Amino acid sequence: MRLLAFGDSFLLGVGDPYHLGWIGRTVLGRTDVTLYNLGVRRETSGDIAARWRREASSRMASHEPLRLVFSFGCNDCVLEDAGLRVGPADTLKNTQMILAEAAALAPTLMVGPPPVVDPLHRARVASVGDALGIVAGQLGVPYIDVFTALRQAETWEAEAAAGDGAHPGADAYQQMADLVMSHPAWRAFTSDDRSVQAH
Amino acid sequence: MRLLAFGDSFLLGVGDPYHLGWIGRTVLGRTDVTLYNLGVRRETSGDIAARWRREASSRMASHEPLRLVFSFGCNDCVLEDAGLRVGPADTLKNTQMILAEAAALAPTLMVGPPPVVDPLHRARVASVGDALGIVAGQLGVPYIDVFTALRQAETWEAEAAAGDGAHPGADAYQQMADLVMSHPAWRAFTSDDRSVQAH
Repeated sequence: MRLLAFGDSFLLGVGDPYHLGWIGRTVLGRTDVTLYNLGVRRETSGDIAARWRREASSRMASHEPLRLVFSFGCNDCVLEDAGLRVGPADTLKNTQMILAEAAALAPTLMVGPPPVVDPLHRARVASVGDALGIVAGQLGVPYIDVFTALRQAETWEAEAAAGDGAHPGADAYQQMADLVMSHPAWRAFTSDDRSVQAH
Repeated sequence: MRLLAFGDSFLLGVGDPYHLGWIGRTVLGRTDVTLYNLGVRRETSGDIAARWRREASSRMASHEPLRLVFSFGCNDCVLEDAGLRVGPADTLKNTQMILAEAAALAPTLMVGPPPVVDPLHRARVASVGDALGIVAGQLGVPYIDVFTALRQAETWEAEAAAGDGAHPGADAYQQMADLVMSHPAWRAFTSDDRSVQAH
């Protein structure tokens, strides 16, 4: 199975001394899965919309089952001089476009954004995350919310504060991996049973 | 530092249950390095020439030092019905084009292809690897040969034979990482001293 994952620095796993991130941790020991981690630092939903399809094309193979994962949102909610990097309406429009095109290509799943350190930024991420879940649901794409559980565990924010101020360390990435792996939608999605569709 | 690595399945780390590959193992514990592993299964020098520049563009940042790594060659030497996937002259032409453009952009380093299981394929890889080293040298790009040492250690071929027939496991990838990390060119290349140029 080929697992192609598109997202931001949290998907890439920045801050993880093991260079796995949460998604690398979900496939530990599974040599039947070829993971392409295509997270890119600083990217918004618009950046990912602009590149994912071409990068996917180079990595698909007709003889192997394909799965597409997306995880982004935090960078859209960053305030810069001129306002939000991407406003909520555009975030939802970009996400709808990405997920609709992806789901037509292969089973697709979205993992929501994690809690960030700054309280105001975090509140915007929470709100956008809720909306992303609704958009995904309308398209029949499974959406895994990790925000609330990671917020309650407090590891994410503690590690991020102790690290570079934005990215957590090994323990929080492992918590996020555990949340994703224990979700029924993820188990169906990464099962090698070709009759299982993610939606 | 951003380390962008382009190559094939051996760079990606296919077969490694830890999903690190040799290059992931070179940066274990280094959270100051953002690794983008852009290895793609089945890719030849021609495939990499066609995509590396665009994928690099999405991942560069002016505020951080950039390093470019290339490692390919085995897939060029695969015999298909119509002959070699890429003949030696084209492999060298592609490599010259890639390395010249890369070295003009950032410090660049090439790691040669590993020994493959099939003896005739392996002989072609050995020969192409020697030529790649010469091309790199002419451009002032450091080239790290791993073929001979991995061949002598025999782990690579034993693990590949025990695995899917082509890709080794954790021990051989670690051996390759150790060979790369112990090379003076790699140490200079991945040093955070901005005055150090790879060439």
